This record gives sequence, structure tokens and C-alpha cells, in this order.
Amino acid sequence: MDEHFLFYIPPEDIREERMWFPEEEVRHIGKVLRKQAGDFVQATDGTGRLLDVELIVVDKKKAAGEIVQSREISAGPERVLAMGLIRQRDRLEFAVEKAVELGVTRLVLVHSDHSGTMTVKPARIEKTIISAMKQSRRCHLPVWEERDSFYDVLSAYRDNRTVIMADPEGVTSRDWHPGRNPALLMVGPEGGFSGKEKDQAIASAAQFVNLGSNRLRTETAACALLTLAGV
Amino acid sequence: MDEHFLFYIPPEDIREERMWFPEEEVRHIGKVLRKQAGDFVQATDGTGRLLDVELIVVDKKKAAGEIVQSREISAGPERVLAMGLIRQRDRLEFAVEKAVELGVTRLVLVHSDHSGTMTVKPARIEKTIISAMKQSRRCHLPVWEERDSFYDVLSAYRDNRTVIMADPEGVTSRDWHPGRNPALLMVGPEGGFSGKEKDQAIASAAQFVNLGSNRLRTETAACALLTLAGV
Repeated sequence: MDEHFLFYIPPEDIREERMWFPEEEVRHIGKVLRKQAGDFVQATDGTGRLLDVELIVVDKKKAAGEIVQSREISAGPERVLAMGLIRQRDRLEFAVEKAVELGVTRLVLVHSDHSGTMTVKPARIEKTIISAMKQSRRCHLPVWEERDSFYDVLSAYRDNRTVIMADPEGVTSRDWHPGRNPALLMVGPEGGFSGKEKDQAIASAAQFVNLGSNRLRTETAACALLTLAGV
Repeated sequence: MDEHFLFYIPPEDIREERMWFPEEEVRHIGKVLRKQAGDFVQATDGTGRLLDVELIVVDKKKAAGEIVQSREISAGPERVLAMGLIRQRDRLEFAVEKAVELGVTRLVLVHSDHSGTMTVKPARIEKTIISAMKQSRRCHLPVWEERDSFYDVLSAYRDNRTVIMADPEGVTSRDWHPGRNPALLMVGPEGGFSGKEKDQAIASAAQFVNLGSNRLRTETAACALLTLAGV
């Protein structure tokens, strides 16, 4: 069993324990990994199943397999991260990748007061999430969504969650301990949160956490806050 | 005073409290920030001094200033991070940038057993470090070096330091608390540490810390370990 690579097969593509691999994986299976029919690979359907798959067809254009074993992997704690959108796409995609590696279960990309006008490209975000899930060997595909404001995010997710806002004026992270409650983690865009956004967070009983004396970029603050919330 | 940008002036370029700005900053001062003689900017010399500088010359080709105020900024705790070299240069530079933001004081890039053969480009590393120092508003320029092996790193830095190795077989990070001693933080390259490297770490009384059940890329593990060591 080659445990280095984990393939992703959407659950709707699995019929009676058999599947065709997505087109973009076929070259990887045949040319890169040099797998043949009869060889095994590991895959997940993103719903928590870790699958041992026997390849039954491998040629230049297609690859098919059959599940020979399936294990349920526990989901781990819920981690909701709401992050202000940043204009630099490489940094945005990096933030998405790192959030997935560090255990985010729901990623909310927010058009916040200081984000400026920008368009999110869903296909790029999805591709980055799937790639990071495979790379980090997670078996649960994180979900993501886009929201028009942090106020929307608070309205949707504050109930039964501790709201944690990364902000230079907060308590130092050494003095902060994530509670047992599920958390809504919030990280601002370049330029940080607006006064209005902070006021709305205060009205939602948010805890403000200071991630140190250095000014952090958005993607760095996201990494640090997810780590502190418990990797 | 414009506190958004922090300029870097190497100490050897400051004579009797006056300096010429480096060539690559001149356009930034004049064209981007639209500063003129008589305006003020903030700068650091990387030795802990935060400087208020009055511009005395700004034209298309040069810019000069004079220090009107200087404050000593405390250095913060020592953070030595030794990281296995990774081949993808964008990820390596990202790791360097994030390490600086998250407070590294000495970054050791290591040709480790699983790093493969690669050449470090010092000018790229230095540029990335300076850029991240300015961005994160640090006033102490982190130092960096290249080492041929983790064994070299241990020999050079284990004395009087707690050796912390990020490894899936370690204790979970929830059960680990960074001590008061200075630490030598070690993160492996893609593919992790070799058995020999782990044995050498054990012989140096290393603590092994597990950064969670997800497989983390090198740069992600570096972010997480620096965060746990205390941002």
C-alpha cells in the first residue's frame, strides 16, 4: 500500500464500491506513480472514509478502482475560521491551504470593511482546498463559503460558539486558553478590522486575542490562531 | 508620522544621524508614498532602534534623511529555528517570511538527510528576511545561516537550550508547554527527519512534539511550532 499519496473521489462518483478516477488524476496514477491494474492506492471520499482501492483499469486516458477496505476516520473538533479577503491571490490561496492543513472545518471568506472590492474565484478555492486535504491526509473535506460582511458571519455562527478575534489590542496569547466550546475564529484582512466590526464583535461577547507584538499578515494570523485553538 | 511603512537602513549606512536611503527605496518614498523633503518616515537599523526620520532630500534618484528621534525596542525572547531545506523555492521563501513574522531570531537552513541536493541563494533569503522584518514592524534583523546537517545544528546550539523536534510520534501539543529555557526548534523537510537525525536528537535530550493528526508541510510545521513556542 502506497501511503504517501491520498486520492480524492467525490462520493457521488463511487457506485457499488467502484469508481473512475477524475481525469486530472489519471496521469498521476499511470505516469507519475507508475501504477498498474492490480496495484493499490489510498483514497478518501471526503466524508471521513479512508479507502484502500485496488486498481482494475489503468491506461493513458482512464483509471478505475474498487474499494477493498474502508475505515471511518474521526472528524476531529469543529474549527470555523472567518477571514477577511485579501487582494493578493497567491497569499489568499496560501491562507486557504494552511487553514486546511491546520484543521479548519469551515472556512468563511469575508468581504470585510477593509478588504476592498474583489471577486473570489470558487474553482480556485475548491481546487486549493482539495489539494491541501489530500496533501495533509485529511479524510474530511472542509466546507467554505463567501460572506458579504463580518456582521453576516457573526449572525450566522455566534450562537453556541465562543467568538475569538485576532487583534493587537487583545489579551496576549500566553494568557489566553481556548475553552471547550466550539469557537468562531476571526482574522482581519490587510489593514485589520474596522471600528464597526470590532464593535459588532464586542456585542457578540468576543474575546480579543493579541498574537504578539509583530504585525502579522492575514495568512500568518490565520495560521497562528488555528494553532493556538489547538492543532 | 506615517506608521504604516517601516524602512530599513543598515547601521553602517547611518553617519552622524544622517543616511541615504537604499536605491530600491527611493521610488517607494517619492512615487508611492509621495513624500517630500520635510516629511517624516519611520525606519529601523535592525539593531533594535526605531527611528523617526525627517526627509531632507527627495528626488527621482535619491533620498536622504536625518534622525530626529530614536527609541530602543526590546528584543523579545530568543527563537532559534532549524528547518530542513525544501526544494520549492516559493515555499522556502514563504517559510522564511513566516518565521520572521512569528518572531524567529536565528533561522538555520539545514541540508538534512531528506532535503536532497539544493543550492541556497543567499541574496533571496536576505531580501525575504528584510522585507518580512519591515512588514511585521520588527526592529531586530533576524540572522540566518546554512548548515550541512541537523547534527551540525545540534552540536552548535543544543547547549543550554531545550531541543524541540516536530514529529508525528511526539507528545500532542496540548500536553506540551514550552519551558522558560531558550529553545532550539527543529522542523524537518518534506519527508521528515531520518531515523539517524531522530537518534541524534534523542541523544541531545530532545522533546518530540506532535503538531496534530494532519500531515503538515514544512512551512506549516514551522508556523505552528513558532506559534506554540510563544508568539
